[in-house]
Amino acid sequence: MVAARARRARRLVTLTSDLGAPYAAQVKAVLARSIDPARVVELTHDLPAHGVHEAAFVLRAMATGFPAGTVHLAIVDPGVGGRRAPLAIACADGSRLVGPDNGLLYPLAEALGRPRAFRLEPERVGGSPRVGTTFDGRDLFAPAAARLARGVDPARLGTPAAPTVYRVPKPSRTNDGGNGEVVHVDRFGNLITNLPTAWVPAGRRTVTVRVARRPLRLPWASSYESLGRGRLGALGSSFGTIEVAVGEGSAARRLRARVGARVTLGGRRPDVPLNR
Amino acid sequence: MVAARARRARRLVTLTSDLGAPYAAQVKAVLARSIDPARVVELTHDLPAHGVHEAAFVLRAMATGFPAGTVHLAIVDPGVGGRRAPLAIACADGSRLVGPDNGLLYPLAEALGRPRAFRLEPERVGGSPRVGTTFDGRDLFAPAAARLARGVDPARLGTPAAPTVYRVPKPSRTNDGGNGEVVHVDRFGNLITNLPTAWVPAGRRTVTVRVARRPLRLPWASSYESLGRGRLGALGSSFGTIEVAVGEGSAARRLRARVGARVTLGGRRPDVPLNR
Amino acid sequence: MVAARARRARRLVTLTSDLGAPYAAQVKAVLARSIDPARVVELTHDLPAHGVHEAAFVLRAMATGFPAGTVHLAIVDPGVGGRRAPLAIACADGSRLVGPDNGLLYPLAEALGRPRAFRLEPERVGGSPRVGTTFDGRDLFAPAAARLARGVDPARLGTPAAPTVYRVPKPSRTNDGGNGEVVHVDRFGNLITNLPTAWVPAGRRTVTVRVARRPLRLPWASSYESLGRGRLGALGSSFGTIEVAVGEGSAARRLRARVGARVTLGGRRPDVPLNR
Repeated sequence: MVAARARRARRLVTLTSDLGAPYAAQVKAVLARSIDPARVVELTHDLPAHGVHEAAFVLRAMATGFPAGTVHLAIVDPGVGGRRAPLAIACADGSRLVGPDNGLLYPLAEALGRPRAFRLEPERVGGSPRVGTTFDGRDLFAPAAARLARGVDPARLGTPAAPTVYRVPKPSRTNDGGNGEVVHVDRFGNLITNLPTAWVPAGRRTVTVRVARRPLRLPWASSYESLGRGRLGALGSSFGTIEVAVGEGSAARRLRARVGARVTLGGRRPDVPLNR
Repeated sequence: MVAARARRARRLVTLTSDLGAPYAAQVKAVLARSIDPARVVELTHDLPAHGVHEAAFVLRAMATGFPAGTVHLAIVDPGVGGRRAPLAIACADGSRLVGPDNGLLYPLAEALGRPRAFRLEPERVGGSPRVGTTFDGRDLFAPAAARLARGVDPARLGTPAAPTVYRVPKPSRTNDGGNGEVVHVDRFGNLITNLPTAWVPAGRRTVTVRVARRPLRLPWASSYESLGRGRLGALGSSFGTIEVAVGEGSAARRLRARVGARVTLGGRRPDVPLNR
Repeated sequence: MVAARARRARRLVTLTSDLGAPYAAQVKAVLARSIDPARVVELTHDLPAHGVHEAAFVLRAMATGFPAGTVHLAIVDPGVGGRRAPLAIACADGSRLVGPDNGLLYPLAEALGRPRAFRLEPERVGGSPRVGTTFDGRDLFAPAAARLARGVDPARLGTPAAPTVYRVPKPSRTNDGGNGEVVHVDRFGNLITNLPTAWVPAGRRTVTVRVARRPLRLPWASSYESLGRGRLGALGSSFGTIEVAVGEGSAARRLRARVGARVTLGGRRPDVPLNR
């Protein structure tokens, strides 16, 4: 009659989605029925809806730092109920990934090393009977994650599968810089690119970039503060790549740029003056 | 001098509100003073402000899946400080509910079975002295929930009371469908109705619905993906009811519909073509 | 190979920032590598970006209620990578604060009593090597907080320092009221002032206030409900100070007021009628 008898999971479980709170709560309820909620770390439920590729980039950045052996449950699933497979993936460091086979998990799986994927089979996972047709996150992925957290081998929950390959776009090197793109726009409107910070030569005080076809010469800043309020600049992001930012403002709005916008580092200096 | 000596609660506590983070933090601080924060599961602090009836629907959907015996603390309380009673409710499965007597708790209490309600009496609950006049969530409900989590009988915290009855509107059956309404608009703008998915005959590929007086013939979709980007359609929601959605878009915006909008399933086929 | 071996921290850790979820996840990952995530209580990651002074007020209100000995990790840091010092602060009740030396921590430190501050030295804190130049939250503050949670003395992580003093503005008393200002606008648009609720004489049914130069005579309400929908009024906030609110609406929008707007209590009665 009384209380949660959920077992203490051996592994941590991270939970990442674009579900918003009400649906995420249903996922957490399923987890709480079989593992101790104290083992669950929520990362976000506000990933860009339907933006699987940006979500894949953000998921990799959010989750790679967790301890080896963690179970990462990720649900950004515009094809829910469609033909995409449900997956569990085992990685080299003992971590496990659970989610839809739409590319979302792939970059994280590669970062964690040597992924082996399994197509989840609902009858092997258990879980509750389905209420609608639109919520694998609650009815399939959450029970699978709870089992993995308790130490069940992913091979017992499904059959070997070849996951959909998606890789975060790689930048290309040029003589004096490189060609890349915006892979994430954060909540401040900072444009996170895939161009490694290391491609900016040491000692530079300005960088020449082209963002969404706009040529710009920008200060290469060591901090948001040093940009100064309202000034455009570039700096090293906490993703290890170049970001374009506006001091206390939104670079995405200023430059009308979004995910996928081309970014070129280097090349001929623009004629337009700094910060115009 | 050192550290939290909060006891491990026997029960889980869920926490749901429209408070936003700063006020919610004050509630969590009160809980942390007497129970282990590891026992607290936050569901959301962003329920529609002042939307008690939509919140009651969402709360029921979020909380019913938690283990028997869980304490559900819910704070959506436009009448805080007014005449509405503070309540604790004991349910058939051993769960307890704590919150204002404004209908918010009622649907969940009925779903968990045989509710017995008690009007909380501040002097029996303990808790800290009140700072202002506007925050029962922190000063009354949180201390009550912490006590219930540690196993205190709700009858010891107040006197038997008859709670305000609020029921999520029930749809009515017709020959070829039913009459219902929108009971929740989720963060994607999907219109969640109270019409059971089971009322759509098996094998149907389209459904005829009327939303906020607009007659529509819509594809009956098995997934958001199969809707196709920008296309209106209907599908089974994860609440077990029919929802009207736009592929990667907002049905609420497209149809200018919100909570309370009438929805009719079945009836004469509209003359307007599909998806206009 | 398997699972998190993070130790159970002796102290609770609260986590407050303006980072948004993706960067906050990286902070949580670092914490999870050395302490049990069950000891971490997230307060918010949506503090006003770049609004250090409002954040300092909100942080104090959110965090003061936690048990003695708690470690409060707070990251609102527009000057990250700049010259501001990284701090750990020990307080009279055994609590510890970690974050940037920009005034953010000061009001909380004073509220917890007898602050002794230390400038964190990265080589003493350990932590992972830095990826970019912009994320002390992950690379310095989180490892420091984890160590403090496990009982390490703050004096071992840095050298004594004199922190930047910032105090939430104090109101001044007048014959029939006082002069203050808006120190926080909450998510409902309620204007939270620094004028103590106690300065409104007992038994008053209206108050005369001037908000951002607009003279107003407002009902002194005991609840939002009693304001009535769309009506301006004043009431005692859950911060212990006077707040100006609109029933089920936004006072910030109605009065075009924001943080820093002057608020006068008392003075000559305005000629304009109530609620115009």
